[in-house]
Amino acid sequence: MRPLSNIRIVLVSPIYGGNVGAVCRAMKNMGLRRLVIAAPRSSFDADAARVMACHAADIFRRRIETPTLQEAVADCGLVAGATARGGLYRAHARTPRILAQRLLAAARKTPVALVFGPEDNGLSNDDLAACTQIIRIPSSRAYPALNLSHAVMLCAYELFLASGDVEEPEESSPEAPAVMRERMFVMWREALLSVGFMKEDKADHMMLALRRIFARSPLTEKDIKILVGMARQTRWCGRELEKERSGRSARAKAPRAAAP
Amino acid sequence: MRPLSNIRIVLVSPIYGGNVGAVCRAMKNMGLRRLVIAAPRSSFDADAARVMACHAADIFRRRIETPTLQEAVADCGLVAGATARGGLYRAHARTPRILAQRLLAAARKTPVALVFGPEDNGLSNDDLAACTQIIRIPSSRAYPALNLSHAVMLCAYELFLASGDVEEPEESSPEAPAVMRERMFVMWREALLSVGFMKEDKADHMMLALRRIFARSPLTEKDIKILVGMARQTRWCGRELEKERSGRSARAKAPRAAAP
Repeated sequence: MRPLSNIRIVLVSPIYGGNVGAVCRAMKNMGLRRLVIAAPRSSFDADAARVMACHAADIFRRRIETPTLQEAVADCGLVAGATARGGLYRAHARTPRILAQRLLAAARKTPVALVFGPEDNGLSNDDLAACTQIIRIPSSRAYPALNLSHAVMLCAYELFLASGDVEEPEESSPEAPAVMRERMFVMWREALLSVGFMKEDKADHMMLALRRIFARSPLTEKDIKILVGMARQTRWCGRELEKERSGRSARAKAPRAAAP
Repeated sequence: MRPLSNIRIVLVSPIYGGNVGAVCRAMKNMGLRRLVIAAPRSSFDADAARVMACHAADIFRRRIETPTLQEAVADCGLVAGATARGGLYRAHARTPRILAQRLLAAARKTPVALVFGPEDNGLSNDDLAACTQIIRIPSSRAYPALNLSHAVMLCAYELFLASGDVEEPEESSPEAPAVMRERMFVMWREALLSVGFMKEDKADHMMLALRRIFARSPLTEKDIKILVGMARQTRWCGRELEKERSGRSARAKAPRAAAP
């Protein structure tokens, strides 16, 4: 079983439907599917939840509701509760990044729950007593309390990254080998000489400056082909101009040159 | 200058006030303060923004509005645009975690902008052309498009963690040294013998099992003091019982022992 599919998000008595919808979206963005609402409030606005869930309304529709937190996590071997508060449990709190590996490892063998409290007061001490792990999300002392869906998103994101179920952005073209880079610099040297940007005696110095500029970031083969194309065309233009001028001066010297 | 204070969040033509408010909250949670709204819409609901900003309404109030994205980032040495779309720029996209160090390093010397597009279509190709870096947040192929404030939160979180401006949850009591652990095991050995949980010939084996249980997670000095206290009281109880019984059997043998 893929460990992410064995991890459920448990919301205890959430107040705002919009937040629950945003939680659904965050879950689906990060490969989580199972939502449990423990001790739901009768005032809960399910329509607002559906709107904010956007293309994750299926997660909201398939949610499970339980009368108590204890029932929501009864079958879970590991229960991690998120809290921003200090006090008794603070000393045992871990960051989502540090806990992610442990949660995933556990989820290979047993259901795992991540538990989040109501928007106003968070998890109570009774709720926290039902948790085997305490998560504390790093945040600024100036304003440590996160929006509910933001807290879920950060935990889900760390689990998703740790799961390795991630498609890293890949270069579609590999980084160019040195021989291609060198050919490019030869081409640019000729081009810049031909358009009169530099004279032969300054060329080596100028090419070092260009090398530094292009060394600051990786260049793919595609990049090099574009840069070589620019240089080739520039060199062509410089040489054509030279021909034109030498032609004209030849014509000026010998205005009645014989036709071939 | 602290690098986080040199990093601005730029929202291009956001649609929903609530999202902008949630962005303000996420920023303040993660130590960012500067919000710019580029090309604002006239239909924008500032009241909804204030409500969702919660205790971060000061960030919304101090926002700067500019007619174009180009003006919003004119003084920035590094401009990173977030996009979930593939295509032309995809090959150059980096994850927030990988870019965070580079953004912070740049922010020590120059203003840095993180740019996010409108909720419906994200950044246009024209917007992306104004960016020097492309951010792509890892997400599930099943639903890759994040809520705007969630996208800002994940980037802000990675910057906050990378800035090192983080108060890690700390153990209020340090992990106990081996000598304390050993004293605890001695105490429990005596306690478990005294209550008759084990006999001397099985004690070493049982104590190994106990060591394995307590080795699974760190124990602080506080933990050890609690566990030692439990063991001491248990040992006391066992010894008292033993005294009672040996006293009774002594009394049974010599019921009329002389008073002292």
